Amino acid sequence: MITWNNLDTISAYQELRKVTPVNLREAMTGENGAERVRKYSVPMAAGLAYNYAAKQVDDEVLEALAKLAEETQLAGKFEALYNGEVINTGEKRMVLHHMTRGQLGEGVAADGVDKRSFYVQEQKKIAELANKVHAGEITNAAGEKFTTVVQIGIGGSDLGPRAMYLALENWAKVNNTFKMEARFISNVDPDDAAAVLNTIDVAHSLFVLVSKSGTTLETLTNESFVKDALKNAGLDPSRHMIAVTSETSPLAKSDDYLAAFFMDDYIGGRFSSTSGVGGAVLSLAFGPEVFAQFLDGAAEEDKLARNQDMFANPAMLDALIGVYERNVLGYQNTAVLPYSQALSRFPAHLQQLDMESNGKSVNRFGEPVGYPTGPVIFGEPGTNGQHSFYQLLHQGTDIIPLQFVGFKNSQMDKDVVIQDSTSQQKLCANVAAQIVAFACGKEDENRNKNFEGGRPSSIIAGDQLTPQALGALLSHFENKVMFQGFVWNINSFDQEGVQLGKVLAKKVLAHDTDGALKAYSDLLNI
Amino acid sequence: MITWNNLDTISAYQELRKVTPVNLREAMTGENGAERVRKYSVPMAAGLAYNYAAKQVDDEVLEALAKLAEETQLAGKFEALYNGEVINTGEKRMVLHHMTRGQLGEGVAADGVDKRSFYVQEQKKIAELANKVHAGEITNAAGEKFTTVVQIGIGGSDLGPRAMYLALENWAKVNNTFKMEARFISNVDPDDAAAVLNTIDVAHSLFVLVSKSGTTLETLTNESFVKDALKNAGLDPSRHMIAVTSETSPLAKSDDYLAAFFMDDYIGGRFSSTSGVGGAVLSLAFGPEVFAQFLDGAAEEDKLARNQDMFANPAMLDALIGVYERNVLGYQNTAVLPYSQALSRFPAHLQQLDMESNGKSVNRFGEPVGYPTGPVIFGEPGTNGQHSFYQLLHQGTDIIPLQFVGFKNSQMDKDVVIQDSTSQQKLCANVAAQIVAFACGKEDENRNKNFEGGRPSSIIAGDQLTPQALGALLSHFENKVMFQGFVWNINSFDQEGVQLGKVLAKKVLAHDTDGALKAYSDLLNI
Repeated sequence: MITWNNLDTISAYQELRKVTPVNLREAMTGENGAERVRKYSVPMAAGLAYNYAAKQVDDEVLEALAKLAEETQLAGKFEALYNGEVINTGEKRMVLHHMTRGQLGEGVAADGVDKRSFYVQEQKKIAELANKVHAGEITNAAGEKFTTVVQIGIGGSDLGPRAMYLALENWAKVNNTFKMEARFISNVDPDDAAAVLNTIDVAHSLFVLVSKSGTTLETLTNESFVKDALKNAGLDPSRHMIAVTSETSPLAKSDDYLAAFFMDDYIGGRFSSTSGVGGAVLSLAFGPEVFAQFLDGAAEEDKLARNQDMFANPAMLDALIGVYERNVLGYQNTAVLPYSQALSRFPAHLQQLDMESNGKSVNRFGEPVGYPTGPVIFGEPGTNGQHSFYQLLHQGTDIIPLQFVGFKNSQMDKDVVIQDSTSQQKLCANVAAQIVAFACGKEDENRNKNFEGGRPSSIIAGDQLTPQALGALLSHFENKVMFQGFVWNINSFDQEGVQLGKVLAKKVLAHDTDGALKAYSDLLNI
Repeated sequence: MITWNNLDTISAYQELRKVTPVNLREAMTGENGAERVRKYSVPMAAGLAYNYAAKQVDDEVLEALAKLAEETQLAGKFEALYNGEVINTGEKRMVLHHMTRGQLGEGVAADGVDKRSFYVQEQKKIAELANKVHAGEITNAAGEKFTTVVQIGIGGSDLGPRAMYLALENWAKVNNTFKMEARFISNVDPDDAAAVLNTIDVAHSLFVLVSKSGTTLETLTNESFVKDALKNAGLDPSRHMIAVTSETSPLAKSDDYLAAFFMDDYIGGRFSSTSGVGGAVLSLAFGPEVFAQFLDGAAEEDKLARNQDMFANPAMLDALIGVYERNVLGYQNTAVLPYSQALSRFPAHLQQLDMESNGKSVNRFGEPVGYPTGPVIFGEPGTNGQHSFYQLLHQGTDIIPLQFVGFKNSQMDKDVVIQDSTSQQKLCANVAAQIVAFACGKEDENRNKNFEGGRPSSIIAGDQLTPQALGALLSHFENKVMFQGFVWNINSFDQEGVQLGKVLAKKVLAHDTDGALKAYSDLLNI
């Protein structure tokens, strides 16, 4: 029997608060530190591992977290979500994105169909389209192959797919699976669409319009922008556009598109990278096989998220350590720091995934909660961040928990030896050095050169950023965010906080304003 | 007589803490809100204005801030910095980046030369080189024009110049001043250089190597990477590379470069966008005239930062409001939200500028401070952010102060009318709507749809993002960060916090490790 209770009513949470905090600096110094690195590690899919040795935990804290996991029924709640219970209670919806990637739990019928079959079928249709485009069976009106795919979407229809594309672009090039260059148009700023259109060959471009509702104003505006450009080039837009939308949207049965692929309300935008939202652009760019490998990695990682034992469930463990940092230790942010240039936009995707899911102040029943929920997420790739904001991370007045990601091997395998080491070795040496520097610090009589240490981090480490590894990485963070939502007793699947701005923007455009809103409209000459 | 004292010893600060906090929601509702929008605004250079109506201030708070400005001698300290006093006390250096852009205070002699003349001379040399490259007087060995400029640098040699390039790229294209495409290589991850080299025509590329010391490991590694690529293409690297460095660096007099341009230790990396660090790549990309306009905007804004009256000094005012938010109201972050796709990487530059400058725990004399200093800075362009992390900003459990930027006109002037408004109008309507939504909120009986409001923001608004406006914007934030450093009594110009990681990374590469450092090296197979 699953029960939903606020975190501050959970007795295991009260116990956790009484546990003596770990002195990370002491814990990570000497052979004890080496022992922690070997011991505090849990395998993930695709050869990755989640290592939490440099987190502010020890066996006692971990035991308390395991009790918290049990009392908050995390495994049972995940299982319920996975098997199609209505977990998005605010909007009365199931949460089914796991079904896009080999979910093998219970089947779920909705809208008159089996949902797993529905998602699989849509992916099959996308793969068929992509294969035909690559084979030159679907071409422009002149019978020429498409060379570029342009995604038009915003938020979850942009950040995830864009981050995944950038993560695999160079891998695909060196592995000879690179089919089409992808570009992205998202912002309603007209300079965004104009700039992308300026640098592509529209005659050989296929546009993927992504909007679940078919009513996202930014996306429809950019669609119109693109259609004008196609018409101005003497082209028929309907031969250059496909739609990814819901079956009930105005786009679904329009003749304006070469094809339409369907999703539904059971897959939230920020969880949609493994659905057609990511599937169309990634299958066109890299081929359906690469997209399938990406799904395989996510599916393998999802299986680990079903483990009841927290110590064998990396997403659950990561989630609970994050709750400990947020609610007991009082840290307000988390920095995501991938030592991989290919993951340059992965932090921006996690920023949406995490902050939009868990940036809530009311519980599942609409009652205010009396404790902090989702943290601020930000980050940039290392080693770039080292030459930028790491100064504050090392010596600032607040402690910021860190999430590193690193790989033993580069994607492109082109390297150079300088001062007896390759660039890849330097990259890895830097992430190892940073973890220890943050944890252990270094005393100096000159206080300006003194490092307090005690700054917690974890690392997800792997062999190489392959499609499988990327899928596993994505799944890990999706599941982590959901586990944290369960602990905080909030609904991670709605986003009511974005509505008010939309309503007021419409008023501004209708000149239906007074007070400050009118004054700002005047200021910006609207 | 200038004196340096910790913030918590300042009596005006103690007074400020006693002032009744403003109820922003009430203050911004009704005609009072409109009046604030008209009143709480201060002109900036290049037609910009800093509007702080939606900040949590009123006349009483502002009066207290003005007293704080006076007691902490902000105007005098800025004047001292501007006129070449040794303000970077930790490293015993002057802070002279204002001299790269028309500083007309006192002259300063150092290293045996007048520094203003030195910087101006270097910029003239850069302009001459750029003009010769554009005119085809400096070409590759085959006598063909260079079409691409590639900056090799990291941190301040990357983030600022890259953000400025992206900010003006489309403006230059529509204003017919676009000369060469620019690309950037920064990360030591070998995939970064490999990917850039894969997508450019090296035979027609000119590389700008930027390292003040000439010893930045990432940059030298990437230089070697690039030289190998040039040699493999049968090209002579010395005909394809220029250096921006200090006169005493190993790069200064090397035959490896077509030309070398000099800077010095009085210009910190994060303050170097208006020096040769930004000057070479921006002059090559857009022509020296555009770079000069950018400097003009910065110089005009610098003049405003000299105003003793806080109410006529936007950088000082912004700085003090930020201190109030950080130290009295207890807010830990600031989100930077430009409603301009061209400013997509401007938040990443500000992240370095602010967090590296003011992420410190000791005062100018090396003594620990007992109050929070620099905040975490993060951000993405609107409207993209609205579909991502704004959920947390509106309804999360922490209040995050916001810094908006918006322009009445787009850069490229290509637009489309949908639902009776242009994209640019929609963009502006959204930023106006968000400010009011954050400040005023909206009550709803359904607590999940309730908006508390009371979330403070400011906006820098202007006509268009031109080179002058960009220069003004950059100068504003540089000077704001310095004013905050003065209030917190810290040295904003060193970065000792980045040293420990460098030392440990060298140990890892030399296999001189034990304990946790060795264990992490094993984990990453170094």
